[in-house]
Amino acid sequence: MATKKLTDISELGEFGLIKRLTEKTQLFQSSTLKGVGDDAAILGASNKQRVVTTDLLVEGVHFDLAYVPLKHLGYKCIIANLSDVCAMNAVPTQVTVSIAVSSRFSVEALEELYLGIHAACERYQVDLIGGDTSSSLSGMVISVTAIGEVDPDKAVLRSGASENDLVCVSGDLGAAYMGLQLLEREKAVFKSNPNIQPDLSGHDYILERQLHPEARLDMVRLFAEIGLKPTSMIDVSDGLSSEILHLCNESKLGAKLYADKIPILVETKEMAEEFGIEPIVAALSGGEDYELLFTVPLSEIEKIKDRKEFRIIGRMCARQEGMDLVLSDGSETPIIAHGWNAFSA
Amino acid sequence: MATKKLTDISELGEFGLIKRLTEKTQLFQSSTLKGVGDDAAILGASNKQRVVTTDLLVEGVHFDLAYVPLKHLGYKCIIANLSDVCAMNAVPTQVTVSIAVSSRFSVEALEELYLGIHAACERYQVDLIGGDTSSSLSGMVISVTAIGEVDPDKAVLRSGASENDLVCVSGDLGAAYMGLQLLEREKAVFKSNPNIQPDLSGHDYILERQLHPEARLDMVRLFAEIGLKPTSMIDVSDGLSSEILHLCNESKLGAKLYADKIPILVETKEMAEEFGIEPIVAALSGGEDYELLFTVPLSEIEKIKDRKEFRIIGRMCARQEGMDLVLSDGSETPIIAHGWNAFSA
Repeated sequence: MATKKLTDISELGEFGLIKRLTEKTQLFQSSTLKGVGDDAAILGASNKQRVVTTDLLVEGVHFDLAYVPLKHLGYKCIIANLSDVCAMNAVPTQVTVSIAVSSRFSVEALEELYLGIHAACERYQVDLIGGDTSSSLSGMVISVTAIGEVDPDKAVLRSGASENDLVCVSGDLGAAYMGLQLLEREKAVFKSNPNIQPDLSGHDYILERQLHPEARLDMVRLFAEIGLKPTSMIDVSDGLSSEILHLCNESKLGAKLYADKIPILVETKEMAEEFGIEPIVAALSGGEDYELLFTVPLSEIEKIKDRKEFRIIGRMCARQEGMDLVLSDGSETPIIAHGWNAFSA
Repeated sequence: MATKKLTDISELGEFGLIKRLTEKTQLFQSSTLKGVGDDAAILGASNKQRVVTTDLLVEGVHFDLAYVPLKHLGYKCIIANLSDVCAMNAVPTQVTVSIAVSSRFSVEALEELYLGIHAACERYQVDLIGGDTSSSLSGMVISVTAIGEVDPDKAVLRSGASENDLVCVSGDLGAAYMGLQLLEREKAVFKSNPNIQPDLSGHDYILERQLHPEARLDMVRLFAEIGLKPTSMIDVSDGLSSEILHLCNESKLGAKLYADKIPILVETKEMAEEFGIEPIVAALSGGEDYELLFTVPLSEIEKIKDRKEFRIIGRMCARQEGMDLVLSDGSETPIIAHGWNAFSA
């Protein structure tokens, strides 16, 4: 088999590399007046408000290149930021992407990463408008900033919930975490015996949720379509427990979540059982679901009942009533954030 | 001497750390509707255009904590981005700051870094509106995104210069580079013999230029005041050579720069001579000056002559005339970019 020669980043230099990685950039947004290629990008004046969010992803902390293909990584690092934009009830419009990489990465490897970045941008019609590339002494670091737009008065904060609001969540939870457990297990097996091929068959859904997540822009569009403005919202990136506590703390309220209402698919449950994990723990503490957790006034119940895109999983209550998970026998157990922490490693 | 106990980042956790670092954040801009603390920040609708720029700074590549105090580093990483905003003829308004740090950094060390970040924000009335904190496997990485605003049609690109436009530069060049050389030398001396104290006395100016640079927002305000819109502009972060070539390439022109017009202070010249470096090389290839290089039509000469804030150092010409440095004897030598390259290490 002929081996394709890989290109050293130093052969291209910083400007050559930026050019190579961004020359396929398409612009979709009329608000992008100038994209990559000057001291800064220019966005047009707008009667919309703009939201801004940023994330930093570090190799060995947030991702493991032993089992995450670079293209998927590129896709996912965009999605994680678009998800934050959607959690404001805003539509993502632009991103910047900065990367620092050690000399072990070839130009071709970075092109793979950017294939995923461009794919996510195209899927969500978001413009890549800037960034920075640098060497690093070890490993890869990716920094993404995303910008979105929202009509004035339509942005949704974490702090707007009221007592008796219904708590809703889109999609299903826990699958991305179980996908990660599966990948970690197969990596450990492979490390102990490189002759054993990873056994990932039959687990497409949970792997897809881990490796190729999507942002719930469809929910933002649905809210507009049915004329519903959630009173508070957050995206589920660190696990349901952590996120509901944020809504409670920012809204100065308590909450009751009903364990049997939390959406967990059978694929997730089966894998959880295989690992000896309670499925609800995967949902509460797993993270990386990129679903939207939001609250809706009781008065809006006609707009939200019987929808397939999301379901009602609880209600907000007075602060002194506590923040609890209500089990099927009616007993209550306090919700504690065991969510993912970049400093716990 | 009592030793103050330093706090491990893991004691606070990610959310606690963010809270500690950002609780002193002041907001100066009325366009910041929501700053740190939600999924994203919210900026108000505006009849101005917005510019967006981002930089990634890596320990061991862009900065050396052996001689850069953390407070200065925090200040400088903001300045580097504000300088890019100014280079668009825009006024900086918001920044986001993300950091990844290894466990060798204490909470107190990061508070020092943020003292510098807050100081730069206050000096330029810029709002810190978001960010991310993470652990890293080694060293510190800082990612800053800056946003600015500019009246429609007032943004200045690199590509707008015309033949015969005058080339101007603010302030003076080469000092930051000589400051870096001095710091590197004293670090080497200290390493070889820790009993020898660094000798930095009498070199305040070049050290200040390296450790505590400023962004030329005053120039943006001056342009507005005297009714001058440069035809093209860039900030001098990688050395004059690299920057004039960017203006030439983007504007599809050549340029003649007059060696004896390039502003180099006596402090810079003396240090260059001590190091056996031609002073003009420090100006052409040194970088980190954060001055503005811009072009002005000949017809505007009345507005710009005899100004102390900047000086005319050359003229744009047809592409085929070349990109040259004109020496005092009238001879010409091609300008080649030896500017700083993050991948050359």
